[in-house]
Amino acid sequence: MDQNTLKKSAAEYACANFIHDNMKLGLGTGSTVTFLVDALGKRIKEENLTITTVSTSSRTKRQAESLGIKVVDLNDVDELDLTIDGADQISSDYQGIKGGGAAHTLEKIVATASKRNLWIVDDSKLAEPFGSFPLPVEVLKTALHQLLLKFEAKNLNPKLRLDENGEPVKTHFGNLIVDLHLGEIKQPHELGQYLKSQVGVVEHGLFLDTVNTVIVGREAGPECIDTIR
Amino acid sequence: MDQNTLKKSAAEYACANFIHDNMKLGLGTGSTVTFLVDALGKRIKEENLTITTVSTSSRTKRQAESLGIKVVDLNDVDELDLTIDGADQISSDYQGIKGGGAAHTLEKIVATASKRNLWIVDDSKLAEPFGSFPLPVEVLKTALHQLLLKFEAKNLNPKLRLDENGEPVKTHFGNLIVDLHLGEIKQPHELGQYLKSQVGVVEHGLFLDTVNTVIVGREAGPECIDTIR
Repeated sequence: MDQNTLKKSAAEYACANFIHDNMKLGLGTGSTVTFLVDALGKRIKEENLTITTVSTSSRTKRQAESLGIKVVDLNDVDELDLTIDGADQISSDYQGIKGGGAAHTLEKIVATASKRNLWIVDDSKLAEPFGSFPLPVEVLKTALHQLLLKFEAKNLNPKLRLDENGEPVKTHFGNLIVDLHLGEIKQPHELGQYLKSQVGVVEHGLFLDTVNTVIVGREAGPECIDTIR
Repeated sequence: MDQNTLKKSAAEYACANFIHDNMKLGLGTGSTVTFLVDALGKRIKEENLTITTVSTSSRTKRQAESLGIKVVDLNDVDELDLTIDGADQISSDYQGIKGGGAAHTLEKIVATASKRNLWIVDDSKLAEPFGSFPLPVEVLKTALHQLLLKFEAKNLNPKLRLDENGEPVKTHFGNLIVDLHLGEIKQPHELGQYLKSQVGVVEHGLFLDTVNTVIVGREAGPECIDTIR
């Protein structure tokens, strides 16, 4: 099976088993979430469900609205029941790296507003060591050079993310992305605290002690993991 | 004497005594800094000084450039020798609150890039208790409601800052300002760490262990304080 089949199976499993009528639902961003939104649109129509969603990117919002899914602003919601999102890498103790799509700040705001978080991934996202996926950090443009100097001095191997035209990638908030090529992250809590405390850092892509349930698309079928937190 | 006379005397004292040829200089924002930039333009012209500056707002940049002062982007500088800025309130142990002009994030980025920091204020800025000036926090728009709920639950008395037309004030980076009406801040380091660690907070207005020299405009003449750090 290819990765898309595995992503789709995880997304459809989540949609069938974790979404209930009258839920307030956060929708993540990325290719796996695209399958989820498709499945959600179908369930809402077939079962006539009342679901209110908040989206973490304009892409997800467009897709959801095109399927007739109600999307509201996070500022109009006190709390979400559940957010379903993908992840770029998940450690053996279920810490996550997100931000490959440059949407991790919005994703973290929505995740933080949620009672529970569920991640849907194909099995390649559990590769080790944790940190082999470069860690995205959203930074204010004015602070870029200062932060690059600081991260280099700390051997964090920072690289400004460029798009296919060689231009700096801009986030939803108009900021830049610096990817830290670390190879391995041994102390994610310390690193996260260090990064967020830097002046000019808006948000990093470490999602720590966040996820409650992980659904992994595997050849043998979706595996559902309760992270017990 | 009115406050403007005191501000001007502090600014002119700083300009005469702390600016040297070939300096890389950070320029703050606000009414006191306006007097500094005026005095700096005059000194550069009269003494033919070579001074490179980095500015913390478009207002300061416009003023400096109109006086022939060289202004460069912070991304083109590794380190500044000195930044001169105002402050909205200074505690008895020289911690500061800034952001009354909504420019504290840029000001903090520039302050952090400086070897030394000097603040110029009139004597009203040393009023007690520290925290009677509302503490500005720059927040991402998407996180506004979530952060207001959180700050209210912690009795931080948050209020979204509005302009004279009742519209939310926007920062240089397009974000919003929440002012925390605290009355008094007893543990600024703890509060600062709490605020910056919140998802959706870009930067707060507490400038802790930052300033090396404070020049206070007083009726009797400018007082120059070495904060010994």
